[in-house]
Amino acid sequence: MRALTIGRYQPFHKGHLNVIEKISKKADEVIICVGSAQVSHEIENPFTAGERIAMIRRSLSQNNLDEIFYIIPLEDIKRNSIWVSHLESMTPPFDVVYSNNPLVVRLCREEGHEVRHSPLFKRNKYSGTEIRKRMMEEDEWKNLVPKGTLEVIDEVDGVKRLNEISKNEISQTQS
Amino acid sequence: MRALTIGRYQPFHKGHLNVIEKISKKADEVIICVGSAQVSHEIENPFTAGERIAMIRRSLSQNNLDEIFYIIPLEDIKRNSIWVSHLESMTPPFDVVYSNNPLVVRLCREEGHEVRHSPLFKRNKYSGTEIRKRMMEEDEWKNLVPKGTLEVIDEVDGVKRLNEISKNEISQTQS
Amino acid sequence: MRALTIGRYQPFHKGHLNVIEKISKKADEVIICVGSAQVSHEIENPFTAGERIAMIRRSLSQNNLDEIFYIIPLEDIKRNSIWVSHLESMTPPFDVVYSNNPLVVRLCREEGHEVRHSPLFKRNKYSGTEIRKRMMEEDEWKNLVPKGTLEVIDEVDGVKRLNEISKNEISQTQS
Amino acid sequence: MRALTIGRYQPFHKGHLNVIEKISKKADEVIICVGSAQVSHEIENPFTAGERIAMIRRSLSQNNLDEIFYIIPLEDIKRNSIWVSHLESMTPPFDVVYSNNPLVVRLCREEGHEVRHSPLFKRNKYSGTEIRKRMMEEDEWKNLVPKGTLEVIDEVDGVKRLNEISKNEISQTQS
Amino acid sequence: MRALTIGRYQPFHKGHLNVIEKISKKADEVIICVGSAQVSHEIENPFTAGERIAMIRRSLSQNNLDEIFYIIPLEDIKRNSIWVSHLESMTPPFDVVYSNNPLVVRLCREEGHEVRHSPLFKRNKYSGTEIRKRMMEEDEWKNLVPKGTLEVIDEVDGVKRLNEISKNEISQTQS
Amino acid sequence: MRALTIGRYQPFHKGHLNVIEKISKKADEVIICVGSAQVSHEIENPFTAGERIAMIRRSLSQNNLDEIFYIIPLEDIKRNSIWVSHLESMTPPFDVVYSNNPLVVRLCREEGHEVRHSPLFKRNKYSGTEIRKRMMEEDEWKNLVPKGTLEVIDEVDGVKRLNEISKNEISQTQS
Repeated sequence: MRALTIGRYQPFHKGHLNVIEKISKKADEVIICVGSAQVSHEIENPFTAGERIAMIRRSLSQNNLDEIFYIIPLEDIKRNSIWVSHLESMTPPFDVVYSNNPLVVRLCREEGHEVRHSPLFKRNKYSGTEIRKRMMEEDEWKNLVPKGTLEVIDEVDGVKRLNEISKNEISQTQS
Repeated sequence: MRALTIGRYQPFHKGHLNVIEKISKKADEVIICVGSAQVSHEIENPFTAGERIAMIRRSLSQNNLDEIFYIIPLEDIKRNSIWVSHLESMTPPFDVVYSNNPLVVRLCREEGHEVRHSPLFKRNKYSGTEIRKRMMEEDEWKNLVPKGTLEVIDEVDGVKRLNEISKNEISQTQS
Repeated sequence: MRALTIGRYQPFHKGHLNVIEKISKKADEVIICVGSAQVSHEIENPFTAGERIAMIRRSLSQNNLDEIFYIIPLEDIKRNSIWVSHLESMTPPFDVVYSNNPLVVRLCREEGHEVRHSPLFKRNKYSGTEIRKRMMEEDEWKNLVPKGTLEVIDEVDGVKRLNEISKNEISQTQS
Repeated sequence: MRALTIGRYQPFHKGHLNVIEKISKKADEVIICVGSAQVSHEIENPFTAGERIAMIRRSLSQNNLDEIFYIIPLEDIKRNSIWVSHLESMTPPFDVVYSNNPLVVRLCREEGHEVRHSPLFKRNKYSGTEIRKRMMEEDEWKNLVPKGTLEVIDEVDGVKRLNEISKNEISQTQS
Repeated sequence: MRALTIGRYQPFHKGHLNVIEKISKKADEVIICVGSAQVSHEIENPFTAGERIAMIRRSLSQNNLDEIFYIIPLEDIKRNSIWVSHLESMTPPFDVVYSNNPLVVRLCREEGHEVRHSPLFKRNKYSGTEIRKRMMEEDEWKNLVPKGTLEVIDEVDGVKRLNEISKNEISQTQS
Repeated sequence: MRALTIGRYQPFHKGHLNVIEKISKKADEVIICVGSAQVSHEIENPFTAGERIAMIRRSLSQNNLDEIFYIIPLEDIKRNSIWVSHLESMTPPFDVVYSNNPLVVRLCREEGHEVRHSPLFKRNKYSGTEIRKRMMEEDEWKNLVPKGTLEVIDEVDGVKRLNEISKNEISQTQS
């Protein structure tokens, strides 16, 4: 059985890793779609698709989960009625979708796909929003992501990037 | 004389029907543009262009208004300066635009079109926003739309769609 | 039963009219998609979507065929794998597709639609390519299109448009 | 040395002019990019790229600054990771970017460009937001823009345009 | 060292497999980009990106090559000057590009990437064009592709798809 | 009077320069649109818009023609019916279009613009196609372009670029 799950993974954290681990126990192969692949360098979306793919791939390998995964970037298409066809065209055929996003659930069901609730894992603790906030406030965040994510963020100087793009424009008091 | 009017029709309600009836008395032919044609499955835009076209066509027929209408989907183009050309290319030539939308009025006038205020009909009562709100709150809404709209919403299970896509993500309290 | 047929209609000719007449005898409602809606002012595609819609609508009315038609422009999407979803989103739900185009047939069948061969009518005589060629060579073409098409082409000065855009650039012998 | 600066210039005001004057003293040639070139007829973006280019060109000439400028419209591309390549493809090669926008600074530096802070000039006084607000409130604004800008706004009837598109839809009290 | 190679893989054949095997001996990790990801159901491009990814992934696994690969779909962007940025944004950082395509070589070198000639393997024998031709002529082709490709083509009924979309339109002799 | 002319300028040659010189004698200001601005690194279109703008600007200056020009890149929009609106939005208002391209002539006239034949200058001698061919065949071409164009082509190593992208893929005889 081939399962599909989708997220933005900004960044890929331990909650994501745990969920994928659980899904992988029920499926022979797991397709991990990296959504909103085209955006990056935004406060809500600091990392490129390629960087997020690297985080995921490395984290899966370091946890000995590297055999049966497809990690696929998916650009937004902004027309809900054709989104499922877009998803299908970019992925190998799949049997089940794991998602808790109401729109994803609805769209996939309208097209006849089986959808199951995604397993949950300490979502109040592991959250992309929280991690990005901590990065910007120089608060502790490194324990919330797997080693692979940490390495990629270091390599691309990700914390500095996030801090720079979130700065206000230069103060207007000078003349 | 050929008149043009434009709306999102999410959904097509009795206020819309009344307005089109009034316009049709002044014009030989009426072009009804279904705007934002590409969006659907959103809280503000639950229905596809095809579904909205079906609502309008059926409602016009059931009210014996089916002889001289063009019902044309129009995708957003997001560049105001070329929007009128986009509109013109998708529609038969027209003599008058009926609209109360200030941007539509301005853009059409800049391109030399005659624009008239659209006739009004109980806009505080008949409103797409209000109808969608009632659908989500399981309040009474069926008396606000013509029979044709009701039939289409039933066929596509539209109330359930709107309710599902407006749900919050699954509760985060589990772990 | 609601049937769908699709064509570029450059221009709408008597062969098209005959085919639609035949389909309308088997269906309660007929959706006529005007394909490649976004192109015009090309030798192969001289008329805008709006002009083609006007040709069809007027010709159907003049032949007393104006009650149960949807005439819908459809822009090209250039990704075959999502084309059927695009088509579905812009049209009311349909039961049967009439087409002889192998790609349309294949794509619709892969998505589970019933497809029937479109009825044929003197295709060696009535052909858009032939009609456009005759227009450019000032040969006889008016007997090949219905009166409604003729009227629209006259109104938009269509023969002159086609001839002008097909001219070669100004001769290069001067200096 | 060739310098590049970028702005929306909605409209081009005396603060912009002063900054460009300062940059032009340090550079042999200055590229002025007119950003968000595709938008117009919006409250935040009333003028087309062409109108903004005319404002800038005329103002530079009237201030005897017309010899070494490139004024280039740049459409938004909405993918930060490829924005610098987009910018580079539309402009002559440049040596330095002048900007105070944190995202522009970061993106250009990631691609290896030298970036300097843009000189400042009474930003609390000269501001596009403030000027548009005054236009809508019929407050004094003409002393904040150079003569060239004033002439272009007059020619295209810009104040009326801004006022019309900012009107609310027609009052809903009638029926 | 992380290497990148790119192809359309329509379909993935033994020549491709051999090349990737050779590259993988020189690199720690290999990024395989599936180009023209958005097209399918064409005579030159019969398979979707998802199907091609499945062919590659399965073939690599069956040849015990499944540990260090990224298989990433890449949509065409049709602007050569920004293509490398597009590629970089969708892939993990890479050190070397393997390619024999002159345009890819030039574009990557202009952006500062190291490019090496891709190793070659019996290109007169193993060729996508040749394999698609044989599929359409019902000639022998199965020995030219790895088992994984064969399985995917069977699953999606690929030979029939290719044959159907390559048919001419229905004969025009009837009336 | 403000005149507009448009070309691809691949590259900007002495014929172009001569034509612009002639137009500038009849007009107060000249808008030079650099068409197909988004393409580059193709055999027919080797140079970016930015490079072409630099060629033109420098050549005009070196010929003391630098006072009253707007040099504006224009991306293709691939919908003829809205092309004139696209053009108008990116340029200052213009009074006359100079063109010998039949499609440009027709489209501008349909929108009410005055169009005049572009003055001609030894078109059999000065031709972009011929110049690109000579570059690839290492034939004499430098006398056909103004000094400004020559400088830009040198700076961006343009002849080598053109030669590299026009090479066939590496010979297939090895294995």
